[in-house]
Amino acid sequence: MKYKIVITSGGTSERIDNVRKITNSSSGKLGNIIANKLIELNNANIDKIYYICSKKAFKPNHPKVNIIEIDDTNDLKEAVENILTKEKIDYFIHAMAVSDYTVDFVTTAQKIAENIRRNPHKDLEKLITHNQDNIVENKISSNEDDLIIKLKRTPKIISLIKKISPQTHLIGFKLLDGVKKEKLIKVAASLRDTNNCDLVVANDLSDIRKKNHIAYIIDKNNNYITASGKEDIAEKLIKEMFKSA
Amino acid sequence: MKYKIVITSGGTSERIDNVRKITNSSSGKLGNIIANKLIELNNANIDKIYYICSKKAFKPNHPKVNIIEIDDTNDLKEAVENILTKEKIDYFIHAMAVSDYTVDFVTTAQKIAENIRRNPHKDLEKLITHNQDNIVENKISSNEDDLIIKLKRTPKIISLIKKISPQTHLIGFKLLDGVKKEKLIKVAASLRDTNNCDLVVANDLSDIRKKNHIAYIIDKNNNYITASGKEDIAEKLIKEMFKSA
Repeated sequence: MKYKIVITSGGTSERIDNVRKITNSSSGKLGNIIANKLIELNNANIDKIYYICSKKAFKPNHPKVNIIEIDDTNDLKEAVENILTKEKIDYFIHAMAVSDYTVDFVTTAQKIAENIRRNPHKDLEKLITHNQDNIVENKISSNEDDLIIKLKRTPKIISLIKKISPQTHLIGFKLLDGVKKEKLIKVAASLRDTNNCDLVVANDLSDIRKKNHIAYIIDKNNNYITASGKEDIAEKLIKEMFKSA
Repeated sequence: MKYKIVITSGGTSERIDNVRKITNSSSGKLGNIIANKLIELNNANIDKIYYICSKKAFKPNHPKVNIIEIDDTNDLKEAVENILTKEKIDYFIHAMAVSDYTVDFVTTAQKIAENIRRNPHKDLEKLITHNQDNIVENKISSNEDDLIIKLKRTPKIISLIKKISPQTHLIGFKLLDGVKKEKLIKVAASLRDTNNCDLVVANDLSDIRKKNHIAYIIDKNNNYITASGKEDIAEKLIKEMFKSA
């Protein structure tokens, strides 16, 4: 059996103007190590790895790896839909930190206030959130006093995968910050159930900052194994993936 | 004469939460080329280059170069004040793209609306801009619908330099996007006059995107020379710097 695998890695970034963006600090280190370990440990069983990543992410370099660079969540959505409709993907390892929010518009407190004063009887929430004049054309001027960035939710990429390709094994990732192990596992299990993941990798930023990257690899029966360090996480994840195959 | 030189390079980034930040796309390429050209062309005249840059910026590697890495505008301010008060700096080349704004607080449209409803007779602008509950602790939840980031102005670093160290030759940079040459030169000259720069380098993003990096190096008498490409910009800038010395 030769597998086709997708790995998403790094973090999306969302454009504010031509020079500014909202970025995610994810480096793509773990996704890169998973790709390299897959080839090191299972080369004979691998047909192709599609590695979808941000431009600055760590990237594997191997003839079996296709690198697909993207910027924002919208690009990611297109790349994922494109691959899943064209190819039969056996495993989808969704390690990328996808922005939950993108920029809706940029305005000023003064413009919002004027809008409210002009429309005294309208719904306040709507006056704040709807269709303010976007003051950005190319580059935000440096002369505004009270600049406001309104964000909106991005589409949940992880929820698309099983919908487009039900037979693909899906590995989700959940990163929280400063929560106890029990809560981390509970939240990760909920992500798994909502998106029909086969496995989910749960980890916490506060561990990663302490250079002590612990992860729990949780299966569909709520059994989990603990891994410590990116190499160990990659190796144990790969073992679990092929066990459930 | 042995010169002590400061170069700022790359772009500052401003923290939203533990994983998100607002970044500037500046790579630090031009600052890096200027540092390398200074050493290549004027090694005998250089005592030390302090290269203050963002972590991901291009960096020179030479025994005479001290690398000082910073994240946000506040870090930059501290680094600049620290160097200028401790050392007699001959030239300050301020090529870094410094964020004009930093994050004041993160809130939701709902919280702003509630605040306005609770205080019907207060100043609307103040209700929008002042001291909303910051909903960020470690990491923004992915469940908010109408997230709003309120920005505030950062201190103008370029304005500090001559105030702390009047004898330092100051080279400012102005980057606009999609403006005509006449306007670019006018805006750059205004930056020069406001901040007491000796030279100012004016360039436009729309040229840089077309891989045609043109810059105008403008002196105190409004005379300017045109340079094309980062190497040429660096060489002509250095020539102008030492001419005005």
